[in-house]
Amino acid sequence: MNGAETLLHTLVRGGVTTCFGNPGTSEVHFVKGLDTVPEMRCVLALAENVATGAADGFSRISGGTAATLLHCGPGLANGLSNLHNAQKAGSSIVNVVGDQAQFHAPLNPPLASETLNYARTVSAWTRQSKSSLSVGTDAATAIAQARSGGGAIASLILPSDVCWGPGGSIGTVAPFGPRPSVPDEAVSAAASLAGFGSSTAFILGDDALCGDAPRFAAAIAAKTGAIVLAHSFIRRVERGGDRPLIERVPYAVPPAQKLFADIRNVVLVGAQRPVFAFAGPDGVSGPEVPGTLFSSLGAAGDDIEGALREVSARLGCELLKPESSWAWDPIERAHGEISSLAFGQSLAALMPEDCIVVDEGVTFGRSAYGATHCARRHDWLQLTGGAIGSGLPLATGAAIAAPQRRVVSLQADGSGLYTVQALWTQARERLDITTVVFSNRKYEILFNEMKRMGVDPGASADKLFSLENPSLDWVRIAQGFGVEAATACTMDEFNDLFLHSLTRSGPFLIELQIPN
Amino acid sequence: MNGAETLLHTLVRGGVTTCFGNPGTSEVHFVKGLDTVPEMRCVLALAENVATGAADGFSRISGGTAATLLHCGPGLANGLSNLHNAQKAGSSIVNVVGDQAQFHAPLNPPLASETLNYARTVSAWTRQSKSSLSVGTDAATAIAQARSGGGAIASLILPSDVCWGPGGSIGTVAPFGPRPSVPDEAVSAAASLAGFGSSTAFILGDDALCGDAPRFAAAIAAKTGAIVLAHSFIRRVERGGDRPLIERVPYAVPPAQKLFADIRNVVLVGAQRPVFAFAGPDGVSGPEVPGTLFSSLGAAGDDIEGALREVSARLGCELLKPESSWAWDPIERAHGEISSLAFGQSLAALMPEDCIVVDEGVTFGRSAYGATHCARRHDWLQLTGGAIGSGLPLATGAAIAAPQRRVVSLQADGSGLYTVQALWTQARERLDITTVVFSNRKYEILFNEMKRMGVDPGASADKLFSLENPSLDWVRIAQGFGVEAATACTMDEFNDLFLHSLTRSGPFLIELQIPN
Repeated sequence: MNGAETLLHTLVRGGVTTCFGNPGTSEVHFVKGLDTVPEMRCVLALAENVATGAADGFSRISGGTAATLLHCGPGLANGLSNLHNAQKAGSSIVNVVGDQAQFHAPLNPPLASETLNYARTVSAWTRQSKSSLSVGTDAATAIAQARSGGGAIASLILPSDVCWGPGGSIGTVAPFGPRPSVPDEAVSAAASLAGFGSSTAFILGDDALCGDAPRFAAAIAAKTGAIVLAHSFIRRVERGGDRPLIERVPYAVPPAQKLFADIRNVVLVGAQRPVFAFAGPDGVSGPEVPGTLFSSLGAAGDDIEGALREVSARLGCELLKPESSWAWDPIERAHGEISSLAFGQSLAALMPEDCIVVDEGVTFGRSAYGATHCARRHDWLQLTGGAIGSGLPLATGAAIAAPQRRVVSLQADGSGLYTVQALWTQARERLDITTVVFSNRKYEILFNEMKRMGVDPGASADKLFSLENPSLDWVRIAQGFGVEAATACTMDEFNDLFLHSLTRSGPFLIELQIPN
Repeated sequence: MNGAETLLHTLVRGGVTTCFGNPGTSEVHFVKGLDTVPEMRCVLALAENVATGAADGFSRISGGTAATLLHCGPGLANGLSNLHNAQKAGSSIVNVVGDQAQFHAPLNPPLASETLNYARTVSAWTRQSKSSLSVGTDAATAIAQARSGGGAIASLILPSDVCWGPGGSIGTVAPFGPRPSVPDEAVSAAASLAGFGSSTAFILGDDALCGDAPRFAAAIAAKTGAIVLAHSFIRRVERGGDRPLIERVPYAVPPAQKLFADIRNVVLVGAQRPVFAFAGPDGVSGPEVPGTLFSSLGAAGDDIEGALREVSARLGCELLKPESSWAWDPIERAHGEISSLAFGQSLAALMPEDCIVVDEGVTFGRSAYGATHCARRHDWLQLTGGAIGSGLPLATGAAIAAPQRRVVSLQADGSGLYTVQALWTQARERLDITTVVFSNRKYEILFNEMKRMGVDPGASADKLFSLENPSLDWVRIAQGFGVEAATACTMDEFNDLFLHSLTRSGPFLIELQIPN
């Protein structure tokens, strides 16, 4: 058994059985090792940012740990921006990066680069294995680290000689302990603040958006009048059907400021303090009014659900029966011209029970979240770190994690072009993904943000924020990557194509032609 | 005038008038500023690695400095691997990265990341502007740094508040001094070593591959019998027509070792010591036999041409008249089945005078270099840093630098898929680029490298190194990005399509279907 095989056995023993990668020469021993470790599934991506984004999506939906397989510093660099998003999501990833043999690297071969420094920027833990004999221990430590704090990125750099040398012992991963409890003082303070009613907002972080946590939060709101919001950049929220309705802190500045106008106390429930994606010359960084008091009910990775249960118990809340308030009310699909609102309505009407929605819809897609509060039960995944090109890879990984569920991938065109190569992996793995590309043929968000900065878009903005001249033909691009596709120019065409996509297996792409 | 405008005026005053980018919110003031600085041309790329690779190609062909415009740490991360290649090429780039306002970044907005650390890994010089009043000085320093050492990457990080604040003075770039002379002792030593004839090899770095330098090197070889080679990963070599024939140090290990079998002295002419891209378990890192002596005739950025002129003068070499030995001999195009050799022959026969060849042909394309020694005059650009996905962006930038010349882009399929988005920029800018995609539907090089490592490819290699299932349809992909395209299944079809592409303006892609 060589080092690469020891690594693979350790990953499998530690429950890490899915790997997304694009191997190179330094990874050939890993690839060969896969022949002898059939429990490990390795999914090929045409570009590394597809692999890392898919690992993120896999972790978000499986709740487990994904592995990557990347090639040297530049291969890692190509995957960094979706690792950035994964880090912000608290996803659990063992990021495996092959590299030059240790005796060879000092000679400065072409691919020599600062692999360790790249890895550290997105990782909670980074190690370069020094010896094939210790790679089992290193990999076991990486898995444990990837499961710490509710989910983290642990990067393991593997020089070639560590892969081809004798492998030593398979590592054993220590069982992961329970999540830390939130201190009682924080629970008491949160219960007191809830008593102020609608001048208090609970902002739910990712750990409060799955399982029973949202129901406890909704019960607190119902009892006290306090406002409950999800944070803006959601890893995964379980919603729809009989689940409580939770609004997000809006991305756009004016509605966020309006929402916070009467709020004086904010309880951060495993959440970060809300902050705008960008500040403008007005110097305003967040939505709150001056003097707002912030307090915390736990940090990401803590037992957030337990803390909300305790707050609701102290307030004597009654858990609302699901059917009394949130039962799914059949929604009519929209007809006629395509618009953001019409799209949201049709989506809410047609999306199937227990589907997974991946939302990188940016401007046109922004209303879809609100429109689907009362749709059938589903999970909703978002861009977490602002690095666009997350959607198609996330959908790919989510579909691999949940092969029995339909993934609905809402994709802005500009962002989708960053990682369009993901379509090929969707075709190769025959994933049940319906992608809807919002073809508005521009970086619409930049026109909006420019105006917010007090700048009138001019000729250069018209050129640099436009995706016209030539127009991108998403149907041909998708077909070129092996994915069936068609264009919808009306809502009726969209409805038909969307329903058609659900009746077939494998990926399908709908290019939604948004009128100018 | 705000900081962004001061920056733009400084760049233009310093002769930097072409920028490749993908702007975001933190760059809107830069974009607006372009309206008032029409001397600056800003070219939009759909993904950052296209922008950075195009900047590299622009610098290699123009001999000048390109600018980039990237968005925050993740936007820079997306462009790092082609900056890695550009750094290895010694290209001259002012790498402009917009970022969060300085008062906003500490609040950890989604896109906050380690921008400075990313920049430092690929840059000779990095600075974050602290004030809009000093941005002119900062930009002037960046330009000077980007021109140091023969060409370098200078990264300038621009927080939003530096862009929107009052701009201060336009910076002035100090004129760049002459290249340092190579010390006389090194010249003498090189002349002595040449006297050992064919046991001495001169390895020419990039500064020895343009202008008159290759002619001096060829004269030394003709006089002394010393061997003259180009290094393996060439920024740009001027060749063909009446120029001397210079072989490269082969990429593959066995031919490189064979070539070095009788060499005992190596003179590195502004070149790095040769090193294999990867070492294997045999522990061999370079092609030379043990005991080979290495010496240097200058470093990259020195007056290498002057040093070679001096060596040849001391040896009493006569410069061969071009027409006496290297005149272009008409070559017959190949017919029948597609093969690597046949392709090289047709390319040599058909490539037009003064074209630019961008070579990311990897395995199938490797014989094209040797086949075109005697083609018409042309420049040949290669992948320098091993980070694949360089070719299509390089071709894009080269075509923008030399609008009157045809660019022939030789592209392996696996590598080309990394940055296929470059095709859209080629269409948008109506660039005269003929792309030939070598569609062998696999990462062929990895099968070869795996065998060299002593590993038999198995089922996992067959899956992970294959680009089948589904096949990629390059014609549809190209058309989707707005580039006309067609497939060649025989050499005759290739010949016709290639000649057709030369008669039209704008980009054209030929998918060369390589038989299994």
